[in-house]
Amino acid sequence: MLKNDLIVRAAKGEKTERTPVWLMRQAGRILPEYRAVRNSLSGFKELVETPELAAEVTIQPVDILGVDAAIIFSDILVIPEAMGLTYEMVEKKGPHFPKTISSKSDLNSVHVADPSDLSYVYDAISITKKELDGRVPVIGFAGAPWTIFSYMLEGGGSKTFSKARGMLYTDPQMADQLLDMITESTISYLKHQIEAGANMVQLFDSWAGVLPPNHYSQFSLKYISKICDAIDEVPITVFAKGAWWALEEMGNLKCRTVGLDWNMDPSNARILLPNKTLQGNFDPCALYGSEESIKRDTAQMLEKFKGHPHIANLGHGVYPDTDPNKVKFFIDTVKELSVIDS
Amino acid sequence: MLKNDLIVRAAKGEKTERTPVWLMRQAGRILPEYRAVRNSLSGFKELVETPELAAEVTIQPVDILGVDAAIIFSDILVIPEAMGLTYEMVEKKGPHFPKTISSKSDLNSVHVADPSDLSYVYDAISITKKELDGRVPVIGFAGAPWTIFSYMLEGGGSKTFSKARGMLYTDPQMADQLLDMITESTISYLKHQIEAGANMVQLFDSWAGVLPPNHYSQFSLKYISKICDAIDEVPITVFAKGAWWALEEMGNLKCRTVGLDWNMDPSNARILLPNKTLQGNFDPCALYGSEESIKRDTAQMLEKFKGHPHIANLGHGVYPDTDPNKVKFFIDTVKELSVIDS
Repeated sequence: MLKNDLIVRAAKGEKTERTPVWLMRQAGRILPEYRAVRNSLSGFKELVETPELAAEVTIQPVDILGVDAAIIFSDILVIPEAMGLTYEMVEKKGPHFPKTISSKSDLNSVHVADPSDLSYVYDAISITKKELDGRVPVIGFAGAPWTIFSYMLEGGGSKTFSKARGMLYTDPQMADQLLDMITESTISYLKHQIEAGANMVQLFDSWAGVLPPNHYSQFSLKYISKICDAIDEVPITVFAKGAWWALEEMGNLKCRTVGLDWNMDPSNARILLPNKTLQGNFDPCALYGSEESIKRDTAQMLEKFKGHPHIANLGHGVYPDTDPNKVKFFIDTVKELSVIDS
Repeated sequence: MLKNDLIVRAAKGEKTERTPVWLMRQAGRILPEYRAVRNSLSGFKELVETPELAAEVTIQPVDILGVDAAIIFSDILVIPEAMGLTYEMVEKKGPHFPKTISSKSDLNSVHVADPSDLSYVYDAISITKKELDGRVPVIGFAGAPWTIFSYMLEGGGSKTFSKARGMLYTDPQMADQLLDMITESTISYLKHQIEAGANMVQLFDSWAGVLPPNHYSQFSLKYISKICDAIDEVPITVFAKGAWWALEEMGNLKCRTVGLDWNMDPSNARILLPNKTLQGNFDPCALYGSEESIKRDTAQMLEKFKGHPHIANLGHGVYPDTDPNKVKFFIDTVKELSVIDS
């Protein structure tokens, strides 16, 4: 039994006594306690692949920051890896895939992931659940197929995403084939996370914003929709960063919550998505401001969502150089200002 | 006298016998003729700073691709350089500023640009004008203040723009001070370009899309508006990449044309901007497709703008690995399909 189930109830569209709050990337570099664990290891992937330690850093922000949910410490790139494309995490640069997909023959080097190859993630969830003992829910996650596809073609970040986007014009059939494989892998991965104890799951479509609207429907939302249809065990959140044009269409997804980035206007989103819980959308840069300005900006954000089911969060992952005290101040402010008088 | 003034007339909102067309970054790496000139030099900046050669590569796409305008070959970063921050162009990586602005004391190391320091740009325009002999108009340009500000704080591209965006929260007064200096520098720079013969000018707000809407009004549009108010000699185009939320507000700018990126829906933009010419917005990745698909996509784009003053262009600068034959095919297709029966 969950002692604090605010987020799960908010995700179901229920009124809650106050707005629940967590932060994307809350388990990570902003916390000295995380860096201590991380620095004792050879690299980022060792942390991802060691369940006891992944569980430890997953729980840190619950203890230190007081968030209303733990999100399992992992990476969306475990899926392409389980499909046959190994990634490296290059310090201060980000992920890099030595091998990428560029032609039809490359498809032979990847396969639908065997979910048992990712047992370290499920183990981390089980340990987290046990150690949390119901204090807060655990959120599982995966990348949305379009974002994973982009990494598999680009080999990392990109200014233009011209390889990934180009294939949608040069070989849409091959794109669909790979997106199908990613989707199938993701569904079974998420189902295993839920079986291990995830109370909710979130899909991150980090590169949604680079697609033209017609391609977004055809090559991203279509696959997100398949995943949402397949997962009915727990509430799903879809966060499509930059896909402002798709909010209305996302109303048709079988997800409970839609995440908003800091460019998106909550007033508009709640009109377009009357039946979804909304998550977000504090500007991560606002956490660089003074406590006074954080308080003012938090109040403004809460006001915009007022009366609509809302899970407070940033509009992006918290930036690594953010002062954890400011993060805690933001969380405390949400808790204080969002209390509904009964 | 201009022999082909289609673009100028379209920018003024006049009906034209067909849709004019040019491409952002048309003078550049897609053309082997450009690479031949570039490879004969020590670096990118030598080309920017040598008026005869800058004029030569400016005219290449008029000869080779048949575009309806020449845009002067230069870089938006000549402004921060003239203000006191030197940039380097790192091959395959992009621009880098060894020194950046991070605190108030750094403001002492920059100054409002002396427009005469950029005489190589005006000379390149004069030579281009002379050599073109009225075949097509010449477009001058500059970066929008927010984008230049971002480069001066970040020192190059960025995943998060957290330094530039952070200052808007931590020291908005200092941000305004620097933005004012950039704006003043840009106005006199553009006036000199016009004096040298530019028939139109364009402001590139390449990093518009990273700001939340309220900051975009306060720290970007405000300064773009000052520039538009100060330049009344020739039509101005404003291209704010990613600032989909600002289209309506851009209707208040004293600019003639608004550029759309490939995410923006022309049908929506023409409702929000009934009195502006619209420029764009072909997906640069669509040029990787077959001639058949380029033709279909071009027809679709033209249809969306039909009946509204329109300058055909991409929704972003052309990507360096694009086949110039495909670019020419796109240009020819616009010319062929947009003819108005009289």
